[in-house]
Amino acid sequence: MRYVAEPPPVEERVALPAGFAAGGARAGIKASGRPDLGIVAVTTSAPATAAAAFTLNLVQAAPVRLSRAHLASSGGVARGLTVTSGCANAATGPAGDDDQAEIAGALAGALGCATDEILCASTGLIGTRLPVTHVLEGIAALAARGLAADDGGLEAFATAMMTTDTRLKAATTTIALAGDDQVSVRSVRVSGVAKGVGMIHPRMATMIAVVLTDAAAEPALLADLLRDASAASFEQTSVDGDTSTNDTVFLLASGTSGAAAPTPGSPEAALLGAAIAAVCRSLARQQAADGEGATSLITCLVTGAADLVDARAVSRSVVRSNLVKAAVHGHDPNWGRIAAAAGAATRPDGSTVGLEVATLSIGLAGHAVFGGAPLAFDATAVSAAMHGGEVLIEVDLGRGEATAEAFGCDLSEAYVRENSAYST
Amino acid sequence: MRYVAEPPPVEERVALPAGFAAGGARAGIKASGRPDLGIVAVTTSAPATAAAAFTLNLVQAAPVRLSRAHLASSGGVARGLTVTSGCANAATGPAGDDDQAEIAGALAGALGCATDEILCASTGLIGTRLPVTHVLEGIAALAARGLAADDGGLEAFATAMMTTDTRLKAATTTIALAGDDQVSVRSVRVSGVAKGVGMIHPRMATMIAVVLTDAAAEPALLADLLRDASAASFEQTSVDGDTSTNDTVFLLASGTSGAAAPTPGSPEAALLGAAIAAVCRSLARQQAADGEGATSLITCLVTGAADLVDARAVSRSVVRSNLVKAAVHGHDPNWGRIAAAAGAATRPDGSTVGLEVATLSIGLAGHAVFGGAPLAFDATAVSAAMHGGEVLIEVDLGRGEATAEAFGCDLSEAYVRENSAYST
Repeated sequence: MRYVAEPPPVEERVALPAGFAAGGARAGIKASGRPDLGIVAVTTSAPATAAAAFTLNLVQAAPVRLSRAHLASSGGVARGLTVTSGCANAATGPAGDDDQAEIAGALAGALGCATDEILCASTGLIGTRLPVTHVLEGIAALAARGLAADDGGLEAFATAMMTTDTRLKAATTTIALAGDDQVSVRSVRVSGVAKGVGMIHPRMATMIAVVLTDAAAEPALLADLLRDASAASFEQTSVDGDTSTNDTVFLLASGTSGAAAPTPGSPEAALLGAAIAAVCRSLARQQAADGEGATSLITCLVTGAADLVDARAVSRSVVRSNLVKAAVHGHDPNWGRIAAAAGAATRPDGSTVGLEVATLSIGLAGHAVFGGAPLAFDATAVSAAMHGGEVLIEVDLGRGEATAEAFGCDLSEAYVRENSAYST
Repeated sequence: MRYVAEPPPVEERVALPAGFAAGGARAGIKASGRPDLGIVAVTTSAPATAAAAFTLNLVQAAPVRLSRAHLASSGGVARGLTVTSGCANAATGPAGDDDQAEIAGALAGALGCATDEILCASTGLIGTRLPVTHVLEGIAALAARGLAADDGGLEAFATAMMTTDTRLKAATTTIALAGDDQVSVRSVRVSGVAKGVGMIHPRMATMIAVVLTDAAAEPALLADLLRDASAASFEQTSVDGDTSTNDTVFLLASGTSGAAAPTPGSPEAALLGAAIAAVCRSLARQQAADGEGATSLITCLVTGAADLVDARAVSRSVVRSNLVKAAVHGHDPNWGRIAAAAGAATRPDGSTVGLEVATLSIGLAGHAVFGGAPLAFDATAVSAAMHGGEVLIEVDLGRGEATAEAFGCDLSEAYVRENSAYST
């Protein structure tokens, strides 16, 4: 059997788990001079166990290729990671790979570990080279100054990841797990920070997120838990339907809490998984709410699906629809676009979802608007309910018991302006 | 073997083939009072042979369901068709089906034919009922006034289909086919009219188009030729990634030209197919160029693909990308977004396309910008070349010989304004 645990309550704030130190700096990648280099280091004597999810885009950035290779080579452990913002180091050819290797090597030197114990992520303009000398100087300066083993260090790291994000994205939760001694109960913290904004669309991970925990966990379990958490959160998020070359989620576990490493399939593994999933869900919602030009978060909750694949496909199709997004921007209760977007959904293998108009129901901002046929509703009241920064779209397929949600944002003139400006 | 014919030259103008009459009228569906009812009638003693392509959206409009059933019941012939604009008659429940049947019955009565020899299409707001009484009165008035067997009649029909279209969309071509007597050569005309604008995305047909020819052809051959033509034209068009509930393409052949019905697989069938495909391609390009809020047509030409499925998938992914569309709007030579959109392409079955960065080349508005690694180029010159109402994006995958093109348009603030206005 497979245990399922209720998601624990999540706070949207920065909180560094034990066993890590972090910091951020201005390395000079961004012309604006804002922070653009972040480092997380593992402070325990043994390396942290690690898992990652990467973009499925066939054009993969140099840091994605490097991190994938390092995780394979190290057997799923890490001593440190670095994120650079302002330059994606994607589609930069073999020179871009050399640049990234040099950066990983410098961080390994500063932390005194093997190069394959370093993970890298980057975000920014595709097709330009990293200013490697600046980044190496930044790493040396940050290492000399010392990373901070407190919440301020993680906040500086998260700040350095931001590009057009208007808000820092963070989430944290705690759970109780059995201690190493199998007698005591230990408090385990799971925290995440993320960047979002544009080129965000579900295909594995969809942006950069770093999730840290002081739980102990084998790399294989971490990979399983991260896969489940990403599938229900980051992969269900769409800002603009564009899949990035750089999407990366890292999950590192320091083991510092003193809790025993959960056995795969155990209730404790389910509890840890629920905490990781809850943090990822919060980060995904924060990313969607802060999508480029966004004024409203859109959550599509699908119920009554024949299976989870259908539920996820339909909810993703609704939040991805430009017409649904534009209607939400205008507070227009145009539910026909929701029906059309739901009906256009396909499963990832291209096959048909279980959906028929006769059993389809739609709710918009708390009002029932369709139930096999149009329902009478007060359009003014529904439009009024679509103000307030979050719109809930409920779609019941009337075909089964499966449910899923997806997260998106409205489409505004500001999105177009931001993304049509020359040389963004 | 399968014969392939060169596409004949196409003119963007209305030209009614022999064997048809057409007209348009104001039935009062649109609040604006603009024309909203169009009829095409077959004027020959035998019905025309007919084929159709419909949306794959699972929420299918009443006219789509009705036309599909009628084509099956009649064995692929038609005496007349009607298009209503301003109301989609989609997601209207069983009452919407009754409305559509009543309309088809009235047109059958006016034309003196069986009800299943009538085809219907509609476009407009989803979820509202057709004002059936008004439509029936419009059909009676139009039938009494008489349809016109000339180009003006087809122009009135095409005008009545328009919603937010800013331009009438029409294409025509002629080919020479062997006559019935197998001695003479007959001139055969293929003409199409279409509406486009929003909720346009490749899944079978993506809007409404009516293609008429005075060629003779068996229904099965027509269906084959239309499938091929749609796959290379309408299914390769995306305005906003939203698939409509009402997409319909009709192809009717009157046989009036005196040309013999081509044998499937013959060179003459290929020639007729090339003419139909050329007309559909022209209509698809006109639809993309007149997409809601569009200021520029985007054509993505993919070459060097391992197979046609890859070529089509990659070209579609590029023209669908909101970020590519916004960059074209701003004349921004941001080719990294093209690389990312190409790399995010998947085949319809979800499998991976054959694409690797090392063999990828990108051309933008006639300038080479990427060839396995970034190429030096004059950004000012490329930006200047992106003005003029059409931008060509060339993507070579370096993996094979297959090629395909896709058509889209830029994403503008005007698209957002047009689609976020309350109660559109």
